[in-house]
Amino acid sequence: MYTISIFSVGKNKEPWLVDALAVYETRLRPALKIEWNLFKTEEKLYHAIERLPKFICLDVSGKEFTSESFANILFEKLKQHGSHLNFLIGASNGIPDTIREAATNRICLSKLTLTHQMVRLLFLEQIYRAFEIQKGSSYHK
Amino acid sequence: MYTISIFSVGKNKEPWLVDALAVYETRLRPALKIEWNLFKTEEKLYHAIERLPKFICLDVSGKEFTSESFANILFEKLKQHGSHLNFLIGASNGIPDTIREAATNRICLSKLTLTHQMVRLLFLEQIYRAFEIQKGSSYHK
Repeated sequence: MYTISIFSVGKNKEPWLVDALAVYETRLRPALKIEWNLFKTEEKLYHAIERLPKFICLDVSGKEFTSESFANILFEKLKQHGSHLNFLIGASNGIPDTIREAATNRICLSKLTLTHQMVRLLFLEQIYRAFEIQKGSSYHK
Repeated sequence: MYTISIFSVGKNKEPWLVDALAVYETRLRPALKIEWNLFKTEEKLYHAIERLPKFICLDVSGKEFTSESFANILFEKLKQHGSHLNFLIGASNGIPDTIREAATNRICLSKLTLTHQMVRLLFLEQIYRAFEIQKGSSYHK
């Protein structure tokens, strides 16, 4: 059983987002638990991040991946870090340099600016896709 | 009043997707109408595309944009093409070369493989964001 902890600001408050995230969390549940750590302010978010021994940053200045190469790095890192990974979704006005530099890896999902809600959904779908790629299922063809 | 016609396969059947798309369509409505052209098969989709005088292709092999540069090209093309644009969302197993080469432009939203549903939502949010960038609103900061 793997665990992925996602750190971000804000709430999953939009009804459509709650429903969409639930679809992917339910599908992932036999293999993976998603743990949401949502903070009211950026200050509180970055304070929590500073206390983590390791984390990966989702950041527009990071490296771009195909879904296949994302699946590879995801399972490689899960293996390296005891089946548990922390991911930071940065605020839209950028991640402080000290936080960015402390990340073990930086991943860019898209060069476009996305809402936090969209990043959460897109990221969860890519995690689900990574598990399907590993299985060799028809989901990712 | 602008019109954007989106051509794709499949249906907007997931309840969360219907709700999410409705949020952005409602916000865009005073300035822009979104017209969905959803086909049951790829054959029917590409047959319809071949009959269009001009269309832009959303394709992983296309050019990547930031949200600001996407806003620029969107308004430039709306101006050039009489306030009406056609966009093709290609199938996950790739767009035929003849179709790809006939497109006036090719845009890559992300190097990741996305579901049609995710592309529709992400694309609609970027169109909304483009209008907010043009207005200079606080939505895109």
